[in-house]
This record gives sequence, C-alpha cells and structure tokens, in this order.
Amino acid sequence: MTGVATAVLLLSTAAQAQLKPEEMVETRQAGYQFMSWNMGKIKAQVVDGEESYDQAKVAAAANAIAAIANSGMGSLYSPDTTTAQLGDKTRLKPEFFQNLDEAGRIGREFNTAANQLAKVAAEGDQAAIKKAFGDVGGSCKSCHDKFRAE
Amino acid sequence: MTGVATAVLLLSTAAQAQLKPEEMVETRQAGYQFMSWNMGKIKAQVVDGEESYDQAKVAAAANAIAAIANSGMGSLYSPDTTTAQLGDKTRLKPEFFQNLDEAGRIGREFNTAANQLAKVAAEGDQAAIKKAFGDVGGSCKSCHDKFRAE
Repeated sequence: MTGVATAVLLLSTAAQAQLKPEEMVETRQAGYQFMSWNMGKIKAQVVDGEESYDQAKVAAAANAIAAIANSGMGSLYSPDTTTAQLGDKTRLKPEFFQNLDEAGRIGREFNTAANQLAKVAAEGDQAAIKKAFGDVGGSCKSCHDKFRAE
Repeated sequence: MTGVATAVLLLSTAAQAQLKPEEMVETRQAGYQFMSWNMGKIKAQVVDGEESYDQAKVAAAANAIAAIANSGMGSLYSPDTTTAQLGDKTRLKPEFFQNLDEAGRIGREFNTAANQLAKVAAEGDQAAIKKAFGDVGGSCKSCHDKFRAE
C-alpha cells in the first residue's frame, strides 16, 4: 500500500470512530445526567442530611463525577452541536464557541473542583466534602449561566 | 421529637431522594451510554487500531468505566422498572428480578472486569488492556443476552 493510500485509510477509519453531532449531544448529556445523579447522592448525605452518611458511597459517587469529568468530554463539543444547528436537542448556546478561552477556563475549574471533591470524599471529612461539593456545584452553575439556554 | 416521629421524618425525607421509575431508567441508561462511549475509545485505540494509542486517554476512559460501574448502579434497578411496566422505555426484562442471584453474579463480574481494565490501563501494557477490554465486553454481553430485550 502506498503512503498516500495508508493515510487515506487511516483518515477514513479514524472518521468511523467520530460521533455524529446528535451522538455527541446525547453522550455529553449522558455524562452530565450521571454526574447529576451522583451529585444528588452527595447532597442528600452530606449537605441536606436527608440520608445517613455512608463514606464509601459518597466516595464512590465523587469518584464517578471526577472520572467522568476527566474523560475528555471536551471532544463532545464541536461548533455544529449548538442550539443554532440542533434546536431543542441541546441547550448549548453558540456563544460557547465565541468564548472558548472562558469555556476552557470554566472547564478546567470544574475538573479541579471535581478532583478535589473525590480527594476529600476519599478522606471522609464531611465539612471538607460539603465545601468541595459547593465548589463543584458553583462551577456547574458558572457554565450554565454563561452557555446554557433556558 | 419522639423516636417514632423522627423515624417517620427520616423515612419521608429519604423518600424524597428516591428516583421515580422512569428516572431510574434514564439514569442507568446514561451510565451505560457514557461507559459505551469510553469503551469505544479504548476499542479504537487498542483493539482495532483505528486511532493511535494514547495511554493517558485510554486510562481516563477506563477510569470512567470503572468509576461508573462502582457507583452503586444496582440502586437504579427496581422491579417496577422493567419492560412489563415501562414498555419500550427500557429493555430490562422482568426475568432480571426472577434471577437476582445470577444478575448479581454478572454484576460483580462486570465490576471486577472494569476494575481490572482500569488497573492495566493505568499500567499501559496494550496486550493486557486488550485482554481486560474483552473481559469487560464479555460481561456486558452476558447480561444483555440474559436480561436485555431485543
């Protein structure tokens, strides 16, 4: 096989692994929904006291949030996956791609906060977990306020 | 407050944190969809060679799969969340709850396989990752064959 043919083949097979815009939206929504479920468990046990505190469960929930956050979700965002193209299938405003520096900064803050939550959840100090949980939630809200449609 | 009143309050607030059947289905589907995306990344890089191998990305993908698997997804399965009650909103056969010993065994195998995949992905040996990836996939298939409707 020639080098050019190899390159074409590589491009074509790499393209097969790419998701379509709707699949990118569904996959990132799945990640956020699963993180939200785990945030809810931590909130119920550590913030609201609705459920009794189970350190192993809180640590597992925080680990899921951090691992999802760390899994490269940025690749699920492309400029053809906003409300401008996909209507109500997504709530991602096109402004996200006009403010990539800020979007990236918020994304990095979110990852830092999620990793801190996993760290303190593994240690088990509830006051530290509550603080870190608030920081993660604040980071979520920061992105929603800027880049999520109503 | 009497002990009985406290117990009633605890039950009532705990119930607030419970998900409705449809929410349980959506949340577990979100978890599986996000795991599937990450399985696809490992497959493309390590099994099919469609994409060049990036150890950090494969390790992050494997971590996400393991952390989701370890996050207590069993609580997202209740007997009122099968095809018998929810039709095509789910593919979970009622047989799952008539074979809880086997379902539990498959679930534990899946967790063990997912943790092994995360372990070898962190170490970076591609042959070991390929083997562990196959074991995770086999565990997925085992449950689908038994308990997932067509």
